[in-house]
Amino acid sequence: MSYTEELGKRAKAAESAIASASALMKNGALAAISEALMKNADAIISENAKDLLAAKENGMSEAMQDRLRLDEKRIAGMAQGVDELIALNDPIGEIIEGFTRPNGLRISKTRVPLGVIGIIFESRPNVTVDAAALCLKAGNVVILKGGKEAINSNICLGRIMRKAVEDSGLPADVIQVVENTSRETTNELMRLNGYLDVLIPRGSGRLIQAVVNTATVPVIETGTGNCHVYVDASADPEMAADIVENGKTQRPSVCNAVESLLVHKECAEKILPIIAERLYKHNVKIYGCDITASILGNSVKKAGDEEYAAEFLDYIISIKVVDNIDEAIAHISRFGTKHSECIVTSSLANAERFQRCIDAAAVYVNASTRFTDGGEFGFGAEIGISTQKLHARGPMGLKELTTIKYLINGDGQIR
Amino acid sequence: MSYTEELGKRAKAAESAIASASALMKNGALAAISEALMKNADAIISENAKDLLAAKENGMSEAMQDRLRLDEKRIAGMAQGVDELIALNDPIGEIIEGFTRPNGLRISKTRVPLGVIGIIFESRPNVTVDAAALCLKAGNVVILKGGKEAINSNICLGRIMRKAVEDSGLPADVIQVVENTSRETTNELMRLNGYLDVLIPRGSGRLIQAVVNTATVPVIETGTGNCHVYVDASADPEMAADIVENGKTQRPSVCNAVESLLVHKECAEKILPIIAERLYKHNVKIYGCDITASILGNSVKKAGDEEYAAEFLDYIISIKVVDNIDEAIAHISRFGTKHSECIVTSSLANAERFQRCIDAAAVYVNASTRFTDGGEFGFGAEIGISTQKLHARGPMGLKELTTIKYLINGDGQIR
Repeated sequence: MSYTEELGKRAKAAESAIASASALMKNGALAAISEALMKNADAIISENAKDLLAAKENGMSEAMQDRLRLDEKRIAGMAQGVDELIALNDPIGEIIEGFTRPNGLRISKTRVPLGVIGIIFESRPNVTVDAAALCLKAGNVVILKGGKEAINSNICLGRIMRKAVEDSGLPADVIQVVENTSRETTNELMRLNGYLDVLIPRGSGRLIQAVVNTATVPVIETGTGNCHVYVDASADPEMAADIVENGKTQRPSVCNAVESLLVHKECAEKILPIIAERLYKHNVKIYGCDITASILGNSVKKAGDEEYAAEFLDYIISIKVVDNIDEAIAHISRFGTKHSECIVTSSLANAERFQRCIDAAAVYVNASTRFTDGGEFGFGAEIGISTQKLHARGPMGLKELTTIKYLINGDGQIR
Repeated sequence: MSYTEELGKRAKAAESAIASASALMKNGALAAISEALMKNADAIISENAKDLLAAKENGMSEAMQDRLRLDEKRIAGMAQGVDELIALNDPIGEIIEGFTRPNGLRISKTRVPLGVIGIIFESRPNVTVDAAALCLKAGNVVILKGGKEAINSNICLGRIMRKAVEDSGLPADVIQVVENTSRETTNELMRLNGYLDVLIPRGSGRLIQAVVNTATVPVIETGTGNCHVYVDASADPEMAADIVENGKTQRPSVCNAVESLLVHKECAEKILPIIAERLYKHNVKIYGCDITASILGNSVKKAGDEEYAAEFLDYIISIKVVDNIDEAIAHISRFGTKHSECIVTSSLANAERFQRCIDAAAVYVNASTRFTDGGEFGFGAEIGISTQKLHARGPMGLKELTTIKYLINGDGQIR
């Protein structure tokens, strides 16, 4: 039996215990995890130090090293994240709807766990804890495959969580960390049909593309965001500047950050300098069309299809002056990734038109795209932002980690 | 550009017109389709005759030829199916939920079309019409790939529907029938990422498996059903016999038909002969365990794993006598396909245990598995029965052909 098959078999064996566990039981396991993380902070930090040392030796950038680093404060943050899940409603057992058919059959549509969830992610080790806790709360078994640069941290976090889960009376195998980081193992995981009910890749566009191309198990694509702000002719200039500045610079490395700005030609001359001033404060580099360059001057670099398609995840933005809302919509349809798109306008007709015509998970009128987030939507927690249309779209909370089961009760009905 | 890419491009070009079409407009197109089918019955029958001739020459079985055959009555049936969709509520535009966040952001979760749906199916040409009409009603563009044995019928039905759609003011490309039936084209369709939002295979387990293995676009698996009836010790014998007879013989060729019977050892001697008598009336062939054979006699053939795993879709059933409900649940977990499973019992505890522990789309207490059907559930129509857990599970109606879009309205909110 291959290593991944063994993981799958163990996951299956743990499935029914967690699926039928009461909210009380699951919350007990979460509390135990949180406590164990705090208690074992020293061990986590010392395993994390091995990863950091290797990272330094391999010449990893400072920014990436920072993402990899775990300290007392970050461990406390992870533990707090787990604690916060305890307060959330258990999605399992909800009767979503129910009805009685003319023949007397009573049909209930109930919420049940998905089963076994695989998560493939990159460097940040906190995902190991976040994802495991979310999956557990929703009654699922999880198999976690993190990046090899965080392998020591991830294995350590996995061991601590597994022990806590076991001590609380659930099978340790509810949480499994893949200890073999070879590409072969990853590919096997993507084809673990019969064991994995869904695979969720979290990370770069390249990772997600690789999963989509290789996987034969159902996949939920997450998080590639080439998000636009379209500033309409009637936009309030200060509001437009606030929204663009916030979207681009508040946290440029995340998927709901703004990557591209479209400005109606009628207001471009007035609004672009206001926006540019805000962006230059943060040293944002601008790629723009010819009109943008003619308004903002020499510091603007020439933007082509490549820049308009790019998810920079950095202090870089592309700008295009458009003739009208139709051109804005067409541009977004061509270059957008169906994540989050925004119009700044005071025209009711244009606001409605934009929301109707743009095909994306979240379509904003006069608000920052940075709000596409489980926490900001009030879901309490999220496993990622789905950019596909099946099953889940936009921020995925606990409910998105569940499926349904019809229960049908009769007294001998036949067709 | 390849043929499938061209289909994809045309589909994309038609997407926004149908996505934003009013219910009135879509219902008008459905009425036009229904009328055109009736008006062109002769043309359909004459194209269908070509397929039937080829089928005969290729030695297709009578049963399969019958599935392929279109006559006045069946065409009227298809037209009526389309008419019935008109009366159903338009799922598009529903506000599923909406809330205002503490910062004043108003968030609405709205129902929108999936976009472009691919459907791969086998012989029956009525699927061409059913599927096209359902996709249209839910605001989607559809690309239909039927079996090569029905190609003339399908192309003819496609042309008639496309003309009707166009005459009613929507783009003809809302409905496209794949005219090239090569395996290469089919494989390309499965990998038409960027154009297809979802691919739904309808047909044999082999077709569905091929799609799952090859597709890189999101797939909804449908319809493989190895459905069980478990007759508990406390079951009413007549009710058990009714449910098994109905499930096995009312229409054996469909996915919600019963394929396997499990009987508690305490009632086997009493109940098995009653059930067998009902089955023998329909000339059902029985594969059974040793105890079954010892009760029912020589006509029972020996059942092994192969028979217990089989989806016969025929007048054949496998039977096993089990020690208790736990063994029944374990057997179903091993051999079931997560479609429809039934317990016949008068024990409340066992009914609840069965429904809790069995992992399937539909779990019945004291009713025939044959009710797992969009019509029987009251959905009005169905595109298939999903046996996977993502997006849709069980009968898929119009709602299951949609996705969601979050609309967020603010007045300048930033994070």
